[in-house]
Amino acid sequence: MHITLDDIEAAAVRIAPHVRETPLWRVPIDALGLPRDTPAFEAWLKLEHLQLSGCFKARGMFNRLLANTIPASGVIAASGGNAGIATALAARALGVRAEVFVPSVSSPAKRERLKALGAEVVVAGEVYAEALQACEARQRETGALMTHAYDQPEVVAGAGTLAREVEAQLGGAPDAVLVSVGGGGLVAGIAAWFASRSRVIALEPELAPTLSRAREAGTPVDVSVAGIAADSLGARRIGQIAWAVAQAHVAQAELLTDDAIRAAQRFMWTELKLAVEPAAALPLAALQSGVVRPRAGEKIVLVVCGANLDPASLN
Amino acid sequence: MHITLDDIEAAAVRIAPHVRETPLWRVPIDALGLPRDTPAFEAWLKLEHLQLSGCFKARGMFNRLLANTIPASGVIAASGGNAGIATALAARALGVRAEVFVPSVSSPAKRERLKALGAEVVVAGEVYAEALQACEARQRETGALMTHAYDQPEVVAGAGTLAREVEAQLGGAPDAVLVSVGGGGLVAGIAAWFASRSRVIALEPELAPTLSRAREAGTPVDVSVAGIAADSLGARRIGQIAWAVAQAHVAQAELLTDDAIRAAQRFMWTELKLAVEPAAALPLAALQSGVVRPRAGEKIVLVVCGANLDPASLN
Repeated sequence: MHITLDDIEAAAVRIAPHVRETPLWRVPIDALGLPRDTPAFEAWLKLEHLQLSGCFKARGMFNRLLANTIPASGVIAASGGNAGIATALAARALGVRAEVFVPSVSSPAKRERLKALGAEVVVAGEVYAEALQACEARQRETGALMTHAYDQPEVVAGAGTLAREVEAQLGGAPDAVLVSVGGGGLVAGIAAWFASRSRVIALEPELAPTLSRAREAGTPVDVSVAGIAADSLGARRIGQIAWAVAQAHVAQAELLTDDAIRAAQRFMWTELKLAVEPAAALPLAALQSGVVRPRAGEKIVLVVCGANLDPASLN
Repeated sequence: MHITLDDIEAAAVRIAPHVRETPLWRVPIDALGLPRDTPAFEAWLKLEHLQLSGCFKARGMFNRLLANTIPASGVIAASGGNAGIATALAARALGVRAEVFVPSVSSPAKRERLKALGAEVVVAGEVYAEALQACEARQRETGALMTHAYDQPEVVAGAGTLAREVEAQLGGAPDAVLVSVGGGGLVAGIAAWFASRSRVIALEPELAPTLSRAREAGTPVDVSVAGIAADSLGARRIGQIAWAVAQAHVAQAELLTDDAIRAAQRFMWTELKLAVEPAAALPLAALQSGVVRPRAGEKIVLVVCGANLDPASLN
């Protein structure tokens, strides 16, 4: 299942009236806390955490909703996190109902945020898998349009509009793009757009290695997920679409420790004044820890993917 | 005492290797929480809180240090806030000593930050005026180069490079610029650059009205300062340079309540994911509260001036 450039172009046209163009910011590399022997290169931060919904996912959810006829029963999703927020927000903007299923372990704060966005919140089951099951049963009952956090073509194509936007802002494809992976919707959209024109480097927490384990096994497999970024990168298995695109267009996948992620997240606040969630710090963590080494003169884009965090957690 | 375009051009050349170009971000106006009857206009946020030191003041301090011969005794300043941080940071970058005088009321956290930047911190007196007095006495003793938070030509010209950068990014002068005022260094730099080509609108907290009271009195006067933004906009009197420039080129000065400032600051976090200090929220507060009314079709720049805050204060 591949995502084409036409899919992404069509998504960009559809969602343009609803989402934000986010800044692409060139940062002096001496501002990034890199190893001393790092060669000179161009670092560009894609500030996608400033996107509507505080995360890139608004792109995919708007595309999913706009590309389909939405029944009177509205849209439905199972998610206590960024995908649920983006679904609720897109539904509100388009004036349709949203039902969001969350497990009882989800935080009251997130449920309140979903309700504030006008979604009907249903607490079902104790863990995500059970909430998903209840959500699917309800979908069969109502016929509502279901959104998936990462494994739907419209969702991946929507995420791909971020790469298209980067290329327009930069006036060409970068040499490399560093991007975090959970279920893989974002990396798939980006890799589908750049194909072999840029090195797309997938980054995962050691404690949530969906793509890396799939590469070892030769096929998507379930992994256990934990750690600092599990909240947004905590998919149990890489998506089918992401797997197919990554096999074709993602040359490199690297793992990062929670310590490196946390250090980069704190650095981004204290030195760059970017308040971002742990998942958004993996690209900088990869450079700071030396896991990814820039080549001299390269243009490297670091995707800063989300800012749905408690700001007090930056202290 | 006027600041010329040549002063600002020279400053821009001097500081370019040391400071960051910060993003100018066009935000859809329906993302800004404005009154319903606001006409359609272009809103551009100048994300200057991403500047080195977390505040526009790095521009002025680098220019002050680079435009002068620095004696072996280094630089000296009296400030517990953003000006002290920017002075310490510029001194460290240029490899010279920095002595910063702070009053005993200053927070231990700020003193630690100054020390972490390599400054020698001297606690002198109970309030700012006493720290300043001690600083001036010490300066006469050592001959160190003194930086002032806002009332030195190099500091104002450095701040003016922000306006020059905005014009280059926008491809022309905006119709209006909304900017916060404390001692007036930033508004003076911006007004000196745009002169009559843009409407520069000065914004102050009701509880720290240095420019507004000077306009009423026809001359700079001392005011009492308090309120949510006193930390960075708490100068007791508008600077002489700012007063001269503002008389020539600032058409409008408006006051904002602390409630409006706080609401805008919180909105910038929850809806725009910009973690900024209260002083940086005055431009949006002016639009949200209807104190400043955009005209149809205008390009309006909101200067987001700083992010030196405890992120927990956003909750």
